[in-house]
Amino acid sequence: MCGIFGVRGTPRAAALTHLGLYSLQHRGQESAGIAAVDEAGAAHGVKRMGLVSDGLADSDMHALRGSLAIGHTRYSTAGSSSIENAQPVLARSRGGHIALAHNGNLTNATELRFELEEGGSIFQSSMDSEVIVHRIARSSAPTPEARVAEALEGVEGAYCLLVAIGDTLIAARDPRGWRPLEMGDLDGAVVFASETCGLDIVGARYVREVEPGEIVVVDGDGVRSLRPFPPRELRRCVFEHVYFARPDSSIFGGSVDRARRALGRRLARESPAPGADFVFSVPDSSNSAALGFAEEAGIPFELALIRNHYVGRTFIQPSQGDRDWKVKVKYNAVRELLDGRSVVMVDDSIVRGTTTKGLVAMVRAAGAREVHMRVSSSPVTGPCYYGIDTPTREELIAANNTVDEIAAHIGVDSLGYLSLDGMLESVPTGPQGFCHACFSGDYPTPPPTDPDKLRFGCGC
Amino acid sequence: MCGIFGVRGTPRAAALTHLGLYSLQHRGQESAGIAAVDEAGAAHGVKRMGLVSDGLADSDMHALRGSLAIGHTRYSTAGSSSIENAQPVLARSRGGHIALAHNGNLTNATELRFELEEGGSIFQSSMDSEVIVHRIARSSAPTPEARVAEALEGVEGAYCLLVAIGDTLIAARDPRGWRPLEMGDLDGAVVFASETCGLDIVGARYVREVEPGEIVVVDGDGVRSLRPFPPRELRRCVFEHVYFARPDSSIFGGSVDRARRALGRRLARESPAPGADFVFSVPDSSNSAALGFAEEAGIPFELALIRNHYVGRTFIQPSQGDRDWKVKVKYNAVRELLDGRSVVMVDDSIVRGTTTKGLVAMVRAAGAREVHMRVSSSPVTGPCYYGIDTPTREELIAANNTVDEIAAHIGVDSLGYLSLDGMLESVPTGPQGFCHACFSGDYPTPPPTDPDKLRFGCGC
Amino acid sequence: MCGIFGVRGTPRAAALTHLGLYSLQHRGQESAGIAAVDEAGAAHGVKRMGLVSDGLADSDMHALRGSLAIGHTRYSTAGSSSIENAQPVLARSRGGHIALAHNGNLTNATELRFELEEGGSIFQSSMDSEVIVHRIARSSAPTPEARVAEALEGVEGAYCLLVAIGDTLIAARDPRGWRPLEMGDLDGAVVFASETCGLDIVGARYVREVEPGEIVVVDGDGVRSLRPFPPRELRRCVFEHVYFARPDSSIFGGSVDRARRALGRRLARESPAPGADFVFSVPDSSNSAALGFAEEAGIPFELALIRNHYVGRTFIQPSQGDRDWKVKVKYNAVRELLDGRSVVMVDDSIVRGTTTKGLVAMVRAAGAREVHMRVSSSPVTGPCYYGIDTPTREELIAANNTVDEIAAHIGVDSLGYLSLDGMLESVPTGPQGFCHACFSGDYPTPPPTDPDKLRFGCGC
Amino acid sequence: MCGIFGVRGTPRAAALTHLGLYSLQHRGQESAGIAAVDEAGAAHGVKRMGLVSDGLADSDMHALRGSLAIGHTRYSTAGSSSIENAQPVLARSRGGHIALAHNGNLTNATELRFELEEGGSIFQSSMDSEVIVHRIARSSAPTPEARVAEALEGVEGAYCLLVAIGDTLIAARDPRGWRPLEMGDLDGAVVFASETCGLDIVGARYVREVEPGEIVVVDGDGVRSLRPFPPRELRRCVFEHVYFARPDSSIFGGSVDRARRALGRRLARESPAPGADFVFSVPDSSNSAALGFAEEAGIPFELALIRNHYVGRTFIQPSQGDRDWKVKVKYNAVRELLDGRSVVMVDDSIVRGTTTKGLVAMVRAAGAREVHMRVSSSPVTGPCYYGIDTPTREELIAANNTVDEIAAHIGVDSLGYLSLDGMLESVPTGPQGFCHACFSGDYPTPPPTDPDKLRFGCGC
Ligand SMILES: Nc1ncnc2c1ncn2[C@@H]1O[C@H](COP(=O)(O)OP(=O)(O)O)[C@@H](O)[C@H]1O
Ligand SMILES: Nc1ncnc2c1ncn2[C@@H]1O[C@H](COP(=O)(O)OP(=O)(O)O)[C@@H](O)[C@H]1O
Ligand SMILES: Nc1ncnc2c1ncn2[C@@H]1O[C@H](COP(=O)(O)OP(=O)(O)O)[C@@H](O)[C@H]1O
Ligand SMILES: Nc1ncnc2c1ncn2[C@@H]1O[C@H](COP(=O)(O)OP(=O)(O)O)[C@@H](O)[C@H]1O
Ligand code: SF4
Ligand code: SF4
Ligand code: SF4
Ligand code: SF4
Ligand SMILES: [Mg+2]
Ligand SMILES: [Mg+2]
Ligand SMILES: [Mg+2]
Ligand SMILES: [Mg+2]
Repeated sequence: MCGIFGVRGTPRAAALTHLGLYSLQHRGQESAGIAAVDEAGAAHGVKRMGLVSDGLADSDMHALRGSLAIGHTRYSTAGSSSIENAQPVLARSRGGHIALAHNGNLTNATELRFELEEGGSIFQSSMDSEVIVHRIARSSAPTPEARVAEALEGVEGAYCLLVAIGDTLIAARDPRGWRPLEMGDLDGAVVFASETCGLDIVGARYVREVEPGEIVVVDGDGVRSLRPFPPRELRRCVFEHVYFARPDSSIFGGSVDRARRALGRRLARESPAPGADFVFSVPDSSNSAALGFAEEAGIPFELALIRNHYVGRTFIQPSQGDRDWKVKVKYNAVRELLDGRSVVMVDDSIVRGTTTKGLVAMVRAAGAREVHMRVSSSPVTGPCYYGIDTPTREELIAANNTVDEIAAHIGVDSLGYLSLDGMLESVPTGPQGFCHACFSGDYPTPPPTDPDKLRFGCGC
Repeated sequence: MCGIFGVRGTPRAAALTHLGLYSLQHRGQESAGIAAVDEAGAAHGVKRMGLVSDGLADSDMHALRGSLAIGHTRYSTAGSSSIENAQPVLARSRGGHIALAHNGNLTNATELRFELEEGGSIFQSSMDSEVIVHRIARSSAPTPEARVAEALEGVEGAYCLLVAIGDTLIAARDPRGWRPLEMGDLDGAVVFASETCGLDIVGARYVREVEPGEIVVVDGDGVRSLRPFPPRELRRCVFEHVYFARPDSSIFGGSVDRARRALGRRLARESPAPGADFVFSVPDSSNSAALGFAEEAGIPFELALIRNHYVGRTFIQPSQGDRDWKVKVKYNAVRELLDGRSVVMVDDSIVRGTTTKGLVAMVRAAGAREVHMRVSSSPVTGPCYYGIDTPTREELIAANNTVDEIAAHIGVDSLGYLSLDGMLESVPTGPQGFCHACFSGDYPTPPPTDPDKLRFGCGC
Repeated sequence: MCGIFGVRGTPRAAALTHLGLYSLQHRGQESAGIAAVDEAGAAHGVKRMGLVSDGLADSDMHALRGSLAIGHTRYSTAGSSSIENAQPVLARSRGGHIALAHNGNLTNATELRFELEEGGSIFQSSMDSEVIVHRIARSSAPTPEARVAEALEGVEGAYCLLVAIGDTLIAARDPRGWRPLEMGDLDGAVVFASETCGLDIVGARYVREVEPGEIVVVDGDGVRSLRPFPPRELRRCVFEHVYFARPDSSIFGGSVDRARRALGRRLARESPAPGADFVFSVPDSSNSAALGFAEEAGIPFELALIRNHYVGRTFIQPSQGDRDWKVKVKYNAVRELLDGRSVVMVDDSIVRGTTTKGLVAMVRAAGAREVHMRVSSSPVTGPCYYGIDTPTREELIAANNTVDEIAAHIGVDSLGYLSLDGMLESVPTGPQGFCHACFSGDYPTPPPTDPDKLRFGCGC
Repeated sequence: MCGIFGVRGTPRAAALTHLGLYSLQHRGQESAGIAAVDEAGAAHGVKRMGLVSDGLADSDMHALRGSLAIGHTRYSTAGSSSIENAQPVLARSRGGHIALAHNGNLTNATELRFELEEGGSIFQSSMDSEVIVHRIARSSAPTPEARVAEALEGVEGAYCLLVAIGDTLIAARDPRGWRPLEMGDLDGAVVFASETCGLDIVGARYVREVEPGEIVVVDGDGVRSLRPFPPRELRRCVFEHVYFARPDSSIFGGSVDRARRALGRRLARESPAPGADFVFSVPDSSNSAALGFAEEAGIPFELALIRNHYVGRTFIQPSQGDRDWKVKVKYNAVRELLDGRSVVMVDDSIVRGTTTKGLVAMVRAAGAREVHMRVSSSPVTGPCYYGIDTPTREELIAANNTVDEIAAHIGVDSLGYLSLDGMLESVPTGPQGFCHACFSGDYPTPPPTDPDKLRFGCGC
């Protein structure tokens, strides 16, 4: 997964993009990059591995002049972690520069790539995003937006794009609208961000979302909109509301915090935990849902699990014997609250089950008498092909076990998931028009040709 | 401020110390260090600037053999930030090694230092802790514990110490007990940590606190206790409960989460906010207090401010005009919740008032109709001489302004602090035996000779 | 300028390439890179800024498996210094990998690039070498060597190439033979290096040079040779013998040390310095020439200038007033030798004249009575378009001044250059078949379209 | 071994010290440091591992204000390589600062240290230099110079010191004068450097050497001299002339280049190589001696071994089988010169014999018919206790083998060392007053109590 940000129309473009990336850091922590287009139409880029705050230095920013900039934060996926795969992609073509930032995952990238390679194109990264840059370069359409439109024809899967071609900034979102892309205004400058928290941090006023299938063009003539593709059935990712987006954001036209509150309340109705003493969340993503559960169930809400926010991403294993040390470094249970109590633990989802199992053990070690686990989404039974980095089916605990088996495995007294309907009906603007493939198996596209081997890494 | 951790009696000593430091990271993020004593009684040390996770590498750990180790995380104080001031202090003396980790601040360090310099001692750092090492080295008492006891005679102010002398581990806490120091047991190994969350992370069982004025000796003969100093009136730091310690910890014999809950409830009684729509906290330190306020007041609790936990400590200023960008990088307000509402914002304390002012502006920009600020401690009117890094009196907003003036300055509709009695009565084992000097002006010691100029940096 | 190295046929391929790059470090210190092709035909690459010894770590080497590897050291040219421009270029094309290392400079890169961009190619670096990779990718010829041959058709200028396509290693040298490329054998493995010192360091036996216009193919069937291009008049760079190559190397079929000795001897005949007390060199490149001069002239040879070899490439200017500090950091004069003496200072060339001027001042400050400068090449009057990074004509002192003016400017008592004939007749296998354009103005090609602005940096 | 530099009396003090350290880099490459004393008498220091050019950044220099500065480059010795052992030592004592840089090795450091530890001193490094700082701190003599004099009483062994106490700069050299310390003048500012090349680089005029047993004081009143110690027999290190100092330096009142020339000429007389075709050196330290040999013997001098100066200090071993790769990375032989010839190889000394053996093999592999090795010093038969880092007796090839055995081991046709008398008579101002203990076994002091174990690392 990734976060993208772009702005056109202010001399502070790169600095604002840098600020914007801070707020999109939860969407990707592997690498961060910014490209800016100077007065002469030349693009300059800076990319670094790691966090925005680690990676991009003051001195880097000096290189990024001009009133148009785009930025990208990249999610960590095993194997493809290298600076070649950092974005924005920067390329020269037909005498001009193209810079591109992409959130999402194409499903026919392999086919498109073969086609391009047959035509003599070379690939210097393992990102599917490079495919789009090649296609833009190959288009001889007369305007930047026409080149982008032509390039995207036949491209399948999920994409939100920010593209700088010369001094034109183009935003594009695939017709199914898998990923969010929000648009704002800052004293006349046009701002785009994956989530509204990116608009907030720069002080931009929310305008509207870039619509599914829309291409928004920002240049010297102002803002224009294209809709070159035939409409498709809407498939906005429900997991953005459940887990991925930040609760202070609004995406797909609805508040994430309100969505999570509603998921928690519905969960309390679908799967109550009558005798429990209190409810607590697995911080931070489940806080709103746990509050919603507590509210609906009329049970107190407690902060019984504390998350250590100072922990970085490199750990040194303390000893062979201690299997749960990763969980212990990240979380701690509050004995004073848990000792002797019957409790409800709310999390947004269970993927492999390993962390959950460790958390339950920790909560029991702190004295909890009964642990009732409630999950504010449906069981995850399949991988995501549309930009969220989920493990293979083999590793997904709910793909291979009944709810009872999972309960036994993670060691809880009871386990309740939200129903598919419950989940979809809780998100704002639902239940229609959402992707729920990883929960329901109802994939709107065939799987990528060789999703595990042929895709050149996560392109998002 | 600092965090200290120590363990004796397990071959995993350094690895456990490393793990322990992760959990004490909130007590200091400037530098981290570990010293371990090998079989031959030789101490080896590793210190790095930055976080535990950044600083100490796998390869460092290989150098740290032996069954006794102590560690330290150091708080960032302007000016004295350099590797020379990282701890543990490691020194050779009388043919043996001394390693020392210190949390607290001595109030007569300048005098002691002059005395030592007159006797020909040299100082290679600006830490008051180095004074104690010199005094241990100068003692010719027959046992390690007698050397430490002799060294501490006449030392005034706040200290929790972990000292390794040869293969003896010594823990010491000053007679007024300003800072917490907790003791645990891990399969026979003795563990010390500033807070119980340090015991939890390594899986140690809580035993008791090191008592004010106590010296605990751990060596081949087991665990012994000394009480060489005349008793003093107890002065445990109330600010540890209010702000500094982690809510999952137990310190001074009481739960921090419970203390904060109680502070919040008392605050709701002392300073209600009748017509408010909901309560929210300034995360993370005020979450428990805000929940307590909501509970007592019968008003809903919302997550209306979101904190960006991925932000590091280096920022690049985006533009001259934007004065609140530091606040914006760290926090964001949830418009969907705040728009048009009358709200109660709970924070643990107001120091300079700058962050608070920025937060109030942010909350108003998100549409809040009325902002009622409630603070779960009394006004901070003076500096701390006992180990917490507060600014000078000139910078403390409550030292120079009435509550009304502060309310006007930060821009709230109403402002309520907790009373001194309310604060002290809310913390467990209170109201007696707590230091509240920075709130009340009732300092139990004279100020350090020249606290601003002569102290050689914060020694904690 | 750059150094290239390649080997096929040994499991130690990457390690040998790494070793080989050490010996080619004088040909480029800006960046270093290695690409290796594993058993499955997949290429893996590692590139770093800086020296081979700084840049490439042990851990990097583990990633470089397989029995075919190529490497590159890159020369520092202002402006284009970035990791994107490090080589080998690594690309995927038609399902396979291409890795390419290039020494030289193309003269029609701009035209070729426009053509490629018209065809939809994108460029991700500013190197002319990327043009060749694109052309290889676009060729649909049936064999790797045919693809390379087709790609090079119409490519003008200087190139020595090492290309890995799948498990085929291809070496190519342009028909004029500007740059050297030597071939060796190591227990059956085929080795290529820019100079024979690269064969020596890995213990390879010298076989022959790759000939001008030749394409050498090494694959499972052994070694084959192609000569697909019409022959051109030979233009081996005389400056390689004069300055660039290492004296322990043999290039273009002749020893560099012997060439420099001969240049020095001829210089002594053409431009003697009758009454001088002794001769000394500007180390290191002029040592052989100075020895030759001393020998021929029958004057003693002294080490009157010492070069500080521990100096890195970053200096801190000590003060505004001191204009010659860069020279002083790099060289020092030996007063005991120079004081009161009349001396001959031999250098290989004078480019801008700044360093020479500083050296003369230093030698005079050490007491030299008379300084007679002798240069073992002709005056440099024009830029090089074929891979050596010379300044623009404006900066070349000999392009704009007579010998007498130069002598006055640098402050010597007499100045003697070698004649063009003298220079060419001294190099082994000369005087025919050498490029001397930067000395004589006799350029064998038109200048690149926009050598200063349009070339995308030094591609060598 | 180490290099030291100091200057008082110019606002450019730290910048000049930085420049001076560049020229003393050959005396130590492990770490570099500078301390400067500001107007208020406060010392600020910067130390880094590695070369001067790597380690000390522009930003560091900004911290080093004031008109008095001292600097230090430290030699790499196994085991004690850590930042704690970098110099200058910086300490506060009796309200003031002491900064100290030391070249040499004390022989009674262990005893002095025990004494100090008994008196309660603590040691924070493993350097013997720290002993001197403690002793200065303990002295209550009235002036800085008297404190230094008192501190040095009873200190045995080799030391050249630069000490800053407040704004007084003190230079001291032990009565036997083992190490050089030269004094210069730069427009009224007083400059000290281990070798005159340090004066040259900053443009200082050579004044005289600091004499054995002398303490030179530079303060606001000018320059004064003390001679507080009873005279001792002079023992200047002959190895400084043979190998350590730079040939452009003058030390102990004589030119190093001239000394090495004379050593080479004497060697040619003592140990001729009649039928040889030519002479060559093992660069760089043997260049002057080889020239002297060639001159005296009337045989040509050739550059038959080339040293790669771009090689850093970290190597990656290319393969198990290749034992001589370290030699190959550093040197290469010139086949065109060596093939079929009978040659004389001159080196300054043979220590372990491993490098020499590898070089001989390389020279033979390049075709040399006969290799006659000539060494411009006597056989090294014992360790140095006075500051040069030699291996233990067990590792010294000449301590355990006859000349014939060594010849056989390294694989030469003949081997000739210089006689002790020949060596001493060749150095300027010799043969009296030189230390030759490591050659002759005539140690002027008893060995340090436990030179291998108790000394806390190399203190120089
Ligand atoms: N400060 C915050 N408060 C609440 N939720 C947050 C906060 N920051 C990020 N989030 C949400 O939490 C998600 C990350 O989940 P979290 O449980 O914190 O970590 P993990 O990925 O380890 O489960 C983010 O994608 C976002 O939705
Ligand atoms: N995960 C957590 N949840 C709640 N409180 C925390 C957590 N981690 C640390 N704390 C508390 O918060 C304090 C830090 O306060 P916080 O408000 O987060 O930052 P700031 O110092 O910027 O105000 C810590 O000292 C500790 O008491
Ligand atoms: N050890 C050496 N001895 C003699 N010549 C060398 C050596 N190493 C490199 N060279 C030659 O010196 C050239 C570099 O020239 P040099 O004068 O040392 O530096 P500069 O580039 O500063 O003039 C190399 O290209 C090579 O020809
Ligand atoms: N540029 C130079 N030319 C000649 N001698 C040098 C030069 N630089 C340093 N030296 C001398 O060479 C010594 C280092 O010896 P050298 O043979 O170069 O390396 P090694 O220590 O590997 O034998 C220095 O201590 C100094 O005496
Ligand atoms: S498969 Fe799941 S994670 Fe992926 S887009 Fe659909 S709902 Fe979202
Ligand atoms: S002065 Fe305040 S912060 Fe310091 S110890 Fe006392 S209560 Fe705690
Ligand atoms: S122009 Fe000069 S440097 Fe360039 S190739 Fe020709 S001779 Fe060599
Ligand atoms: S023992 Fe050898 S190296 Fe040491 S000081 Fe004496 S002569 Fe010099
Ligand atoms: Mg989570
Ligand atoms: Mg806070
Ligand atoms: Mg040169
Ligand atoms: Mg040598």
